[in-house]
Amino acid sequence: MTSDFTYYTPTKVVFGKNTESQVGTLIKEFKGKKVLIHYGSASAKRSGLLDKIITSLIQSGLDYVTLGGVVPNPRLSLVHEGIALCKQEGVDFLLAVGGGSVIDSCKAIGYGLYNEGEVWDFYDRKRVVNGCYPIGAILTLAAAGSEMSSSSVITNEEGDLKRGLNSDTSRCRFAIMNPELTYTLPPYQTMCGAVDIMMHTMERYFTAKGNMFITDGLAEALLKTVIYYAPKLKNKPDDYEGRANLMWASSLSHNGLTSAGNSSPGDWAPHQLEHEIGGMFDVAHGAGLSAIWNSWATYVYANNPSRFANFGEKVFDLPRTKNVEADALAAIEATKDFFASLDMPINLNQLGIHPTEAQIVEMAEKCTFFGKRTLGDFKTLGKEDLIAIYKNAEK
Amino acid sequence: MTSDFTYYTPTKVVFGKNTESQVGTLIKEFKGKKVLIHYGSASAKRSGLLDKIITSLIQSGLDYVTLGGVVPNPRLSLVHEGIALCKQEGVDFLLAVGGGSVIDSCKAIGYGLYNEGEVWDFYDRKRVVNGCYPIGAILTLAAAGSEMSSSSVITNEEGDLKRGLNSDTSRCRFAIMNPELTYTLPPYQTMCGAVDIMMHTMERYFTAKGNMFITDGLAEALLKTVIYYAPKLKNKPDDYEGRANLMWASSLSHNGLTSAGNSSPGDWAPHQLEHEIGGMFDVAHGAGLSAIWNSWATYVYANNPSRFANFGEKVFDLPRTKNVEADALAAIEATKDFFASLDMPINLNQLGIHPTEAQIVEMAEKCTFFGKRTLGDFKTLGKEDLIAIYKNAEK
Repeated sequence: MTSDFTYYTPTKVVFGKNTESQVGTLIKEFKGKKVLIHYGSASAKRSGLLDKIITSLIQSGLDYVTLGGVVPNPRLSLVHEGIALCKQEGVDFLLAVGGGSVIDSCKAIGYGLYNEGEVWDFYDRKRVVNGCYPIGAILTLAAAGSEMSSSSVITNEEGDLKRGLNSDTSRCRFAIMNPELTYTLPPYQTMCGAVDIMMHTMERYFTAKGNMFITDGLAEALLKTVIYYAPKLKNKPDDYEGRANLMWASSLSHNGLTSAGNSSPGDWAPHQLEHEIGGMFDVAHGAGLSAIWNSWATYVYANNPSRFANFGEKVFDLPRTKNVEADALAAIEATKDFFASLDMPINLNQLGIHPTEAQIVEMAEKCTFFGKRTLGDFKTLGKEDLIAIYKNAEK
Repeated sequence: MTSDFTYYTPTKVVFGKNTESQVGTLIKEFKGKKVLIHYGSASAKRSGLLDKIITSLIQSGLDYVTLGGVVPNPRLSLVHEGIALCKQEGVDFLLAVGGGSVIDSCKAIGYGLYNEGEVWDFYDRKRVVNGCYPIGAILTLAAAGSEMSSSSVITNEEGDLKRGLNSDTSRCRFAIMNPELTYTLPPYQTMCGAVDIMMHTMERYFTAKGNMFITDGLAEALLKTVIYYAPKLKNKPDDYEGRANLMWASSLSHNGLTSAGNSSPGDWAPHQLEHEIGGMFDVAHGAGLSAIWNSWATYVYANNPSRFANFGEKVFDLPRTKNVEADALAAIEATKDFFASLDMPINLNQLGIHPTEAQIVEMAEKCTFFGKRTLGDFKTLGKEDLIAIYKNAEK
């Protein structure tokens, strides 16, 4: 069933080897003059990537300042620091060098520069953004898809709150994607990325009222690509084909292609359940997702077992039987087994966390914005449902 | 194998029922003030669509002029007329109401307005375009994919020359896609569209040096969608799901998604072979493509039979045998049979044309730009090859 939709992906993707050397030219193309180079760890410096970027900027006659220190689950405090720095220095273009965390931090800085007042208000749904400063990205991690998406997620350390915000105004002007830049990622981070890519598509796949036919086909092809290549990267981290396919899948998974014409933007309960885990325990996002998904799926599948059965057939090539219930459970099992084969946790204990009863209740309360919202689309979930899902996810 | 690529699809797609009523708001969003409403036949007027558009423009406080009369294989003379009219009237935004022909005519007008001198020079490769006036589209035909693509094709009546031109600067600012607007299309035109959509993907599928894994999967899913829905539309032209899936497939087929990371932009010999047929005999583009494809495929498949065998397996669910040659031929046969099942011609005689020997030689000469270029990527073709393909296509 096809629903109305808007599809808007203005990001110019420049994909391939050594494409980072084009960054100066691209920023000029998009009218940038003074650039904030925003990045995470010291590895961007060590690897020589920052030097290469700065050389390109200088060659294009661009001015710049730098701000490192972005961490996974990027912090509001650094966003504040970035906004102040950009205002002081007269920055007019934001360059994210990293993965989703760095890009999301840039998006939040961009909102803060464009709009007056406290930027957290937008993430806290108190106000609506009117625009965002222009952003470009040099991607060093295939995972979040933030390089082509409208979304960003920021963690407010005061209260361990992790909140997402979507606005087309924050979509990157360009995204430079060189798969070779991801060769040095540790396997754990690579596999977290693979899970995140899959989950961005799977969240959109499981809707209550059905999807557009072509979109289902595209989503299944994307998922099969990740399933094909992620295991190869476990043993060969410098496999160009694997890195390239995962990188492009990360962008397509989250730019709107896999939800076009679907009856809803997706379920997103697994993501929101994970945001609370990430907010409270600071785990890697992809690992949090794989740890919670099985419990979520087992809790909700009975609402429409044939959708899960179809997923197993099309994505994992499982045979269909006359027992749709059994087929659905086999699909969940296959997904769990696949995550396990990537050495990803499939429950909270494997993730290294053992939440207390009180912590579970706290996560469930925060997740519903203290009773202000329900979660999910495939099945609508309230606080008690979330408590049950967290508990079933423990081991 | 993944090659470097740029992917740039800035067109804002607004898809669904009654979306044409948003046209005024969208033109304002993209800074238009005085609009050329460019369209084809009187049916846009009769159906009430033009009135609806004009109402929306007036409500948004926009000024406009109209220019109808675009025909399939759109003519250079009308492009000249459009350029003169827009200059005289101070038009700053071009609105195409129709299918690929109208959008392509708009693109040519946009080039002519932005760049000095004779616009045909750009199509004739004498000069390179520097930009294009902004264009929006209201799509009434799922076929050419021009609403999201960088390409346009214009026919110069003097010399029966049909030439294509690609430039990112001509990509539509927005595309309004209401599948219901295509309900009244005659079956022949609908099926011509289905062939064109498939061919835009198939041209990109058959490369000499291989494609990106994920792109192959997406292309196959798109083709399977057309194969699933086109036959249904033969009997039920107002099937919303069929119309919607074909419409979205038409855009995705030609916006760059199905060639991202491939070793070349595609083969495109079938298109170029058809351009000469269309230029000389003025046939419907999709029908010309289905009439020539079989002869092209039979002529070239031996360069890499396993590629055709793979196509048959993934797109038409054909079984694989130990005989890759036989599998390749079975794939060609299945494609031919499918086109025939849509009542599309599978040779030139069925297309209603019986070219003379001299006409075939003339088409082959024009197609190679009188010896200045070869065609194809899957297999490189010269004048003698083209003559053979045209001859084998006769019946």
